[in-house]
Amino acid sequence: MAQADIAVIGLAVMGRNLAMNIAEKGFKVAVYNRSSSRTDEAMAEAGDLAGNMIACHSIEELVAALKPPRALLLMVKAGEAVDQTVELLKPHLSKGDIIIDAGNANYRDSIARNDALTAEGFQFLGVGVSGGEEGARHGPSIMAGGNKDAFARVEPVLMAIAARYEGTPCCAYMGPAGAGHFVKTLHNGIEYADMQMIAEAYGLMRAGLGMSTAAIADVFEGWTSGPLASYLIEITVQALRTTDPATGKPIVDVILDSAGQKGTGRWSAIEALDLGVPASAIAAAVEARGLSSARALRQAVNAALGDAERGSIGSATPEAVADIEKTLLAGKILAYAQGFDVMAAGSKQFGWDLPLAEIARIWRAGCIIRSRMLDRMSEAYSATPAPASLILDPDFAGQIKESLPAARKTLGHAVAEGHAVPALTSALNYLQQLRASRSTVDLVQAQRDIFGAHGFERIDQPGAHHGPWHSGAE
Amino acid sequence: MAQADIAVIGLAVMGRNLAMNIAEKGFKVAVYNRSSSRTDEAMAEAGDLAGNMIACHSIEELVAALKPPRALLLMVKAGEAVDQTVELLKPHLSKGDIIIDAGNANYRDSIARNDALTAEGFQFLGVGVSGGEEGARHGPSIMAGGNKDAFARVEPVLMAIAARYEGTPCCAYMGPAGAGHFVKTLHNGIEYADMQMIAEAYGLMRAGLGMSTAAIADVFEGWTSGPLASYLIEITVQALRTTDPATGKPIVDVILDSAGQKGTGRWSAIEALDLGVPASAIAAAVEARGLSSARALRQAVNAALGDAERGSIGSATPEAVADIEKTLLAGKILAYAQGFDVMAAGSKQFGWDLPLAEIARIWRAGCIIRSRMLDRMSEAYSATPAPASLILDPDFAGQIKESLPAARKTLGHAVAEGHAVPALTSALNYLQQLRASRSTVDLVQAQRDIFGAHGFERIDQPGAHHGPWHSGAE
Repeated sequence: MAQADIAVIGLAVMGRNLAMNIAEKGFKVAVYNRSSSRTDEAMAEAGDLAGNMIACHSIEELVAALKPPRALLLMVKAGEAVDQTVELLKPHLSKGDIIIDAGNANYRDSIARNDALTAEGFQFLGVGVSGGEEGARHGPSIMAGGNKDAFARVEPVLMAIAARYEGTPCCAYMGPAGAGHFVKTLHNGIEYADMQMIAEAYGLMRAGLGMSTAAIADVFEGWTSGPLASYLIEITVQALRTTDPATGKPIVDVILDSAGQKGTGRWSAIEALDLGVPASAIAAAVEARGLSSARALRQAVNAALGDAERGSIGSATPEAVADIEKTLLAGKILAYAQGFDVMAAGSKQFGWDLPLAEIARIWRAGCIIRSRMLDRMSEAYSATPAPASLILDPDFAGQIKESLPAARKTLGHAVAEGHAVPALTSALNYLQQLRASRSTVDLVQAQRDIFGAHGFERIDQPGAHHGPWHSGAE
Repeated sequence: MAQADIAVIGLAVMGRNLAMNIAEKGFKVAVYNRSSSRTDEAMAEAGDLAGNMIACHSIEELVAALKPPRALLLMVKAGEAVDQTVELLKPHLSKGDIIIDAGNANYRDSIARNDALTAEGFQFLGVGVSGGEEGARHGPSIMAGGNKDAFARVEPVLMAIAARYEGTPCCAYMGPAGAGHFVKTLHNGIEYADMQMIAEAYGLMRAGLGMSTAAIADVFEGWTSGPLASYLIEITVQALRTTDPATGKPIVDVILDSAGQKGTGRWSAIEALDLGVPASAIAAAVEARGLSSARALRQAVNAALGDAERGSIGSATPEAVADIEKTLLAGKILAYAQGFDVMAAGSKQFGWDLPLAEIARIWRAGCIIRSRMLDRMSEAYSATPAPASLILDPDFAGQIKESLPAARKTLGHAVAEGHAVPALTSALNYLQQLRASRSTVDLVQAQRDIFGAHGFERIDQPGAHHGPWHSGAE
């Protein structure tokens, strides 16, 4: 009876697709859902693949179907549902059985779950899975954290179902418990920034250059064979080419501009602040979603202050479009640099030794942010020594340098003409602050010494100093 | 023997100054420091005021000196030192004695300390004190949270030592435990934004308009009688008028542009994200400090990419300077609006009923961000119903509207010419997003539905919808 290699628990679309993916790769997968009608639906949907799937209608059946040590992959709603499911399972499990949380958990919860389950003799893996429904079905990017032996036990399954980039599976071991979900969180933070920047570039073409959605779709389609080549650019083309059947308008024009968000984008911005790593483009993207959904406030501000201007930033010449491409390219590199910096800082803080080159490598296919650029990022982090920031990799430094005049010009116009470009300008401001041999923070230090005697360092002498402050205007 | 009204524990400069302030107002204050040499120094420094101060060299002496129920104000380093001091005190205290943490605690710690101490029969107040050393000595702004009866017991002392604005003390009860330190945290977040924006305005005049520090000091001095009138502008004049004795240069030019930060600014940005309230100007200011202190990375990026441009944004005409004043004015209103929005959201989340008008009122004097504008903000929040955002107050809406063309022009120039203006542009982008009747987040929603089947709302029909997505470029 005990013939299944792994169980998938939670058969909403992600879990169902993962189970079919596993079955398709020749493994036997036991499937279970709290309401068993969904289990039956999953089996029916699986068609021929159902031959490798074992429908379980009780936890007893599920546990009996699994080869020991049992590997149980949970794909349930992040948070309480995970703990509830674990509590339901535990009385039926044996020491050494492996519970795998493949949802979008907060990595701090994964650390806590690992500690609790390990203390009881079980094993735990916190596994980030990216790629949406399609990825789950045909190959996601998989970031695993937890006990290394437990990972080895399920590695054949995870490697088999993962996406492939030129034949190499996009699955890797990230480090101890928490590391997998931490990396997935930053993946999502970067995803937020990437999406927001694409939306800002779209806005500049639409309202700033006066282009039609069809013309903009052509531009994005062109970018799919350039340095911005990526899944997100591809689906942008798809979105802009879609007509709303009800109205005949471009579908984006009938979609309410109010974006939902789950926890991960916000968490990544919080982690960045907590670790003291500036990740302004990610934060701006999170804030943009928050603002978009503050509809009552938006309407009130719109009524009180009038609509945002969004004036022309020029004609839709190939040069103007190329400038926007460069602006987006610089912004994207900078946002990714911020995200990787947060991972580097988290790795240091938690002693994880996160494999940054591996992370870029397994993001090249399967996940939402898959792109050509990640291949180059993987190479950059494979250098010895690894660069302290992606900005310092000679190739990316060159791309930024080459894009910078266009970014300054385009975003300068955008700001002057009233366009909201929060993520792109945050990225540019980040770069300009990093490049500056002198910032104006000297004045901030002077203020801090005047009101709080915090002291300051000098450019020409070591040690802490205090000013002999002029009486000023007081 | 038990004659002291209150104790001050921890006699570094803030504690010493608070103790002298209390003594000066006619209360008897028992003073104690772990190393008693500092207690003796504090007594010596107090001069005549020492008559109202009782030097205690042991906790036994301290406890014996206090009238019951004892009120013990801790001014020690935030964090572990508070808990250590509380543990030292507890065995000597009686039920009903009041422990007051007046340091820069994280409000979550204050809630936890309140819970723990209350369970043991003690009382707790978490009190935010702003105003730096001068404020502590001559009148700080005081934000108290905790048990209302405990507050009533120490209210006469706190009211007496607080700063006064046109005769009214800048001290108020904010709400239950945690509320005081939460408000203080946001005060500091706003302070970060205000300081960073002033520094950006200074940079625009210095590098963008080519003005000397002396000329810029004159400009800031002029602003001290306009809508920006504030303590931070006053000390900016002081800073810019100070010459370095060693080199004869303006002192800001020899100060290293690398700013320290304590926890509160960062916490306020984290709280904003956690509550889902966009506070981009505060986040940008926190990030700017973080970037300023990443010196090794800055040097490497500077070497790889060359120095930031900071080109001319025009001549130093009265009009250009007035445009920068308006830019700073709009930025300041928007940053404060963000900070107050975070407090409103925190108040809702924790059921505190934070008195926003009172908060603006007690920030009018004593604290670092004291300003003329806060008087107006207090009025705005006194309206019935209170505005959902300061931006919606007719007066502030008018000021923003009037300043907006100048802000767009100035910041457009700044971005194009390579200046780093992260806080000011974040504020402007925040406003433009809020004003926009249509943002480009519709595209983000399209992307989310394509890759994750997240669905979207339509502008013309209720309910959740999914797109019939075009095959696009795939």
